[in-house]
Amino acid sequence: MSDLTSRQAAEFLRSRDGFLILTHRRPDGDTIGCAVALCRALRHIGKTAYVLPNADATSLFDPYWGDTPAPDSFVPETVVSVDIASLGLFLEKAEPYRDRVELCIDHHPSNEGFGKRNCVEADKAACGEILYDICADLLGSQSLPQDVALPLYLAVSTDTGCFVYTNTTPNTHTVAAALMETGIDFKAVNKRHFRTKSYVRLRLESRMVETMDLHHGGQTAIAAISLQDMADLGATEADVEDIAAVVGQLEGVHTAVTIRELKPGECKLSVRTQADLNASAVCKLLNGGGHAAAAGCTVYGSVDEAKKAILNAINTIRAEG
Amino acid sequence: MSDLTSRQAAEFLRSRDGFLILTHRRPDGDTIGCAVALCRALRHIGKTAYVLPNADATSLFDPYWGDTPAPDSFVPETVVSVDIASLGLFLEKAEPYRDRVELCIDHHPSNEGFGKRNCVEADKAACGEILYDICADLLGSQSLPQDVALPLYLAVSTDTGCFVYTNTTPNTHTVAAALMETGIDFKAVNKRHFRTKSYVRLRLESRMVETMDLHHGGQTAIAAISLQDMADLGATEADVEDIAAVVGQLEGVHTAVTIRELKPGECKLSVRTQADLNASAVCKLLNGGGHAAAAGCTVYGSVDEAKKAILNAINTIRAEG
Repeated sequence: MSDLTSRQAAEFLRSRDGFLILTHRRPDGDTIGCAVALCRALRHIGKTAYVLPNADATSLFDPYWGDTPAPDSFVPETVVSVDIASLGLFLEKAEPYRDRVELCIDHHPSNEGFGKRNCVEADKAACGEILYDICADLLGSQSLPQDVALPLYLAVSTDTGCFVYTNTTPNTHTVAAALMETGIDFKAVNKRHFRTKSYVRLRLESRMVETMDLHHGGQTAIAAISLQDMADLGATEADVEDIAAVVGQLEGVHTAVTIRELKPGECKLSVRTQADLNASAVCKLLNGGGHAAAAGCTVYGSVDEAKKAILNAINTIRAEG
Repeated sequence: MSDLTSRQAAEFLRSRDGFLILTHRRPDGDTIGCAVALCRALRHIGKTAYVLPNADATSLFDPYWGDTPAPDSFVPETVVSVDIASLGLFLEKAEPYRDRVELCIDHHPSNEGFGKRNCVEADKAACGEILYDICADLLGSQSLPQDVALPLYLAVSTDTGCFVYTNTTPNTHTVAAALMETGIDFKAVNKRHFRTKSYVRLRLESRMVETMDLHHGGQTAIAAISLQDMADLGATEADVEDIAAVVGQLEGVHTAVTIRELKPGECKLSVRTQADLNASAVCKLLNGGGHAAAAGCTVYGSVDEAKKAILNAINTIRAEG
């Protein structure tokens, strides 16, 4: 295993052909955008390149794949992974390539270094920022084609919540500026990913807000989505994604709890804290764990029982603090 | 009246002293950020400068003013306006300066050119982008101080909804990158302005969603906030700001109507359309007006009467189309 800069990664890519690009399980805009962009950049310089189809991808990403997914008949020479931190995140279809990753490109600090060559830059908010450097290098004096720039914009914008998350850096903005300079329809990407909500999603959020319990003078908020709520509204997993953010944005709230009833008698709890309360300590009392600012646990019981249990745990830790 | 480039504007500012900077009525982050940044940049180069206090400003902007508001005793020599498109947007306190604006800096295409000198760049998403150029010029080889960069970041981010609105350009991102390079706490700005909602606001949104009417197979959504809703939730005007965006984000909706009951028997309607339906034509039927994609009108009647009236108007225009 050796570590490569983005320039060395581009050099390596130029020296090879027959590329298959891997994305991670439950793919997001970053892994998909990076894979599609790299595939197209390689084709622009005359290489054969494909992305391994990812059946986990939701329809949200349908507009981006184009003709990049590999046919079953494709026999790769060079396997590259993008935005994959560990072998555990490989698709089942990618199992045959576990020991065959010639180049692993990633931005996760926890990257396991499973590639024969690894280009890991953990200071980047999105893997798309690294791919921007690599694609620009591959294409040399050619200006970046829109079919490369658009998926890179998808990658960079989605991994930073459209430049609002705390991981955003000056480089994120510099890359966004360069991508937008190519004339891509970034407005359609923004609209699709950051300014659109389904009616079901909006109604789920409403129900959470209306049934939310506030404690400790508004510093603690406990919200829940029951199986009944999901059934009533005809909600799917896609409608629930990142739903904990609804409680997390509440003004004045230091401890935000979101409870999801997964099956009768089993609730999954997500705890996010902002002030001096340790979320991990709270969840440990209920046999869970995590980080100081974000942790989780499972309570075997009804939603009401889960609410009582987590409130008790929070009270216990507050009393200690 | 003469037109200045940002470089010429900086040159003019260097040649004067005793500055009073004006912001517009119902001030937003752009006008406040621009005024505070310019005031501080002028002080950094040894000038006396103040911002005319703006009593319309909400507490949301409290962290940014610092010691820039002018004392009553201050007698200005040079008056500068930032982000003000017309004399109609002057504060009452600014009336004495209507004919005394030495330099008007703005980005609105509709700017009336009321200054003796006008630096208007309508291609900029935020006036803060123009002020960035001017402040950088004023400070010359000095790197931009954080007390100038932070209010400029406020200006640029709030006028673009944190880089998500369609007005965002490559230059917006380039400026954001330069501002963040100074090491400002942009995370606090993002959290405060884009990732925080009051409980009352969330409940208002919920109520709108729960009482929303969908028509035309989900293509038309009509939502309302009644005086009763406002009273029930103890909501203020600040809680209702930009509330039409809630309906506007609904997936599949081409025509989004938001009704606000202003007093008993009087409703204000906002109509936003995405597809081929002309919002202005719809509102004209109810004696209102506006643009093709965003228009408004007033219906003298109850919320239910307003709902019926706007639905009839939409049906009429749909039938014509």
